Amino acid sequence: MNKIEHIGVAVRSLSLSIPLFEKLLGTPCYKTEFVLSEKVNTAFFKTGESKIELLESMEPDGVISNFVEKNGEGMHHIAFEVDDLQAEIERLKAEGFKFINEEPKRGADNKMVCFLHPKTTNGMLVEICQQVLPAQ
Amino acid sequence: MNKIEHIGVAVRSLSLSIPLFEKLLGTPCYKTEFVLSEKVNTAFFKTGESKIELLESMEPDGVISNFVEKNGEGMHHIAFEVDDLQAEIERLKAEGFKFINEEPKRGADNKMVCFLHPKTTNGMLVEICQQVLPAQ
Repeated sequence: MNKIEHIGVAVRSLSLSIPLFEKLLGTPCYKTEFVLSEKVNTAFFKTGESKIELLESMEPDGVISNFVEKNGEGMHHIAFEVDDLQAEIERLKAEGFKFINEEPKRGADNKMVCFLHPKTTNGMLVEICQQVLPAQ
Repeated sequence: MNKIEHIGVAVRSLSLSIPLFEKLLGTPCYKTEFVLSEKVNTAFFKTGESKIELLESMEPDGVISNFVEKNGEGMHHIAFEVDDLQAEIERLKAEGFKFINEEPKRGADNKMVCFLHPKTTNGMLVEICQQVLPAQ
């Protein structure tokens, strides 16, 4: 794993949280993007070599809205960048880790992503992601 | 804020979680340290320019043991590195953020640290920290 690619933060409202995080981090939001596979709107901030990704659910019974309902707003997942997603999946499976989705899916910000199951990662929702070309 | 200095992860047992995170991250734990101010044992892993800090409580009613009791193991806080802690405290106060401790205290890994109150940071426990010389 090369680095922390981003920290995903579940929020109720991007329109409220974007100005809050701009003040907190002292840096402007540089991109917003709707992620079809997850039905979430996202907003990105740079911090060093990593990003903060705000996630607002666009559906009432989605992963993020359920998380906010149960836990309130806050840190949702940690994403690590890898060079070779398939090789990393195989390495982690051999080490005994379980995946929520073993089949990579398209995430935000031109990434193919997989999520590990928190039951095998000390309760932490871990994403691994690889940079790909923009979708056509 | 320069970068994500570390992500703090609350765990029940370092002796169980250190080997787990070594497998997950594919990198060895490079340091363990007892942090007197928080009564926690910590273990560190490098990932890019950031670190993962595992936190195991050394007291039954401590912050970390209470967190694990309530939420289970998982991500506990995000720490950002700053060059000038006092200036950053003043900047954030002027922006309306509240602190758990406005008076910097000694954290792990030769840092002076302050925590912002999650009520003002979208439910996310945020630490800001500045590198200092090792304690004598």
